[in-house]
Amino acid sequence: MTIQLKQDERIDQLMQYDLEIIQSPSVFSFSLDAVLLGNFAKVPTHDRAKVVDLCSGNGAVALMLSQKTKSNITAIELQERLADMAQRSIQLNHLTERVEMIHADVKDAVTHIKKDSVDVLTCNPPYFTVTSESRKNPNTHLAIARHELHLNLKELMETSADLLKTKGKAYFVHRPERFLEIMDEMRAVRIAPKRIRFVYPRKGKEANMLLIEGIKHGKETGLKIAPPLYVFDEQDNYFPEVRRMIYGNE
Amino acid sequence: MTIQLKQDERIDQLMQYDLEIIQSPSVFSFSLDAVLLGNFAKVPTHDRAKVVDLCSGNGAVALMLSQKTKSNITAIELQERLADMAQRSIQLNHLTERVEMIHADVKDAVTHIKKDSVDVLTCNPPYFTVTSESRKNPNTHLAIARHELHLNLKELMETSADLLKTKGKAYFVHRPERFLEIMDEMRAVRIAPKRIRFVYPRKGKEANMLLIEGIKHGKETGLKIAPPLYVFDEQDNYFPEVRRMIYGNE
Repeated sequence: MTIQLKQDERIDQLMQYDLEIIQSPSVFSFSLDAVLLGNFAKVPTHDRAKVVDLCSGNGAVALMLSQKTKSNITAIELQERLADMAQRSIQLNHLTERVEMIHADVKDAVTHIKKDSVDVLTCNPPYFTVTSESRKNPNTHLAIARHELHLNLKELMETSADLLKTKGKAYFVHRPERFLEIMDEMRAVRIAPKRIRFVYPRKGKEANMLLIEGIKHGKETGLKIAPPLYVFDEQDNYFPEVRRMIYGNE
Repeated sequence: MTIQLKQDERIDQLMQYDLEIIQSPSVFSFSLDAVLLGNFAKVPTHDRAKVVDLCSGNGAVALMLSQKTKSNITAIELQERLADMAQRSIQLNHLTERVEMIHADVKDAVTHIKKDSVDVLTCNPPYFTVTSESRKNPNTHLAIARHELHLNLKELMETSADLLKTKGKAYFVHRPERFLEIMDEMRAVRIAPKRIRFVYPRKGKEANMLLIEGIKHGKETGLKIAPPLYVFDEQDNYFPEVRRMIYGNE
């Protein structure tokens, strides 16, 4: 199949999964955060689950999840240009029958996906609150992906709770400095935090990322703090666990 | 000085600090938790701060803090027998002029210590909620130290907020499964969680302890997740950082 690349787009590899993904330095490229989220999320291997990825960007998480399950995956992305990149990557990987990309505002997700129907939901949302600076970012694509210009934590959690079925699982990647807000907004919509994994750039440094699993209408007891994840070792190489997530078991 | 030991008491070493401490296997012995808390708490080195340790047990944390500051330290312990052990350890280490042990209920702390006056507060509280089992524990001393029979999280945080001055710092050691409750109760009394360190028994295991620093009337932004602390390495030896906390730099 011939997929047309636009402007400065290129085809990169999601090597662990033998997938190809269209990226663009000026529009959007997936980051380690997406790889960690795709790895952290537990999805049933069978084909009967309903899996949704919100704020999909160029579709990296949705593509990765498609390799962990036989179930259908629905991805939602607000930015038309990114949704289009993702759509072409889905074609490139011959996944059009199982992975659907919807170009829509996440806040309108329930007009596209049935309420209380989702088994597994993932999201790598914008991390930063809106400041006067973030509105001035000359690159609108990156600004929307990084700052809460169109979706804040409260809206994300409300949508997630609407979509998930009872006992459905949500997986988010975010920043530790917003940890208390994340807990508050999850609990406000009764997505109980169940498991958290903190990600540290290297030994001796504070965490700069967190992965969190929540269960809709789950009990608020027994929160587990998973083993820490270090990204780089002292020689600036990826730690084996991260290397495997990126490159597979080679 | 001759200090009298009772029943099965023995004198152990707090080696990093060259301190001696009276312990008893049947009544109370300090654990690694106390060592980690004593290490985690930041105290000004000068002699003008007011430092308080609640739920002091046999005084391990208060004794350790006395070596990190020239300021006076007040310790509070509910159980008379433990307070008495701590008092004799204070004498044993010639610290009676700087470390005071008060035998009292932590909930009555403000009758002994002026409100809004404390710069640094530490507490290694009972970890476990009260169940029918905990009431049946044949060893009352250990049951009271481990279960919330006389002090629960809410009461601890209320007392801590009463004692601390604005911007005063609180340090707690606790269990991850109660993390959400700890956050809730701290925030309810406006002790803002500022820094958390998770403690993992060994690589690949979930955290089994957490250390948390809060600031009274601090801002609820910029929570930091400190580097993880592993206790044992793969040969079941203490990791160097923990070994130094216990044995010092020898």
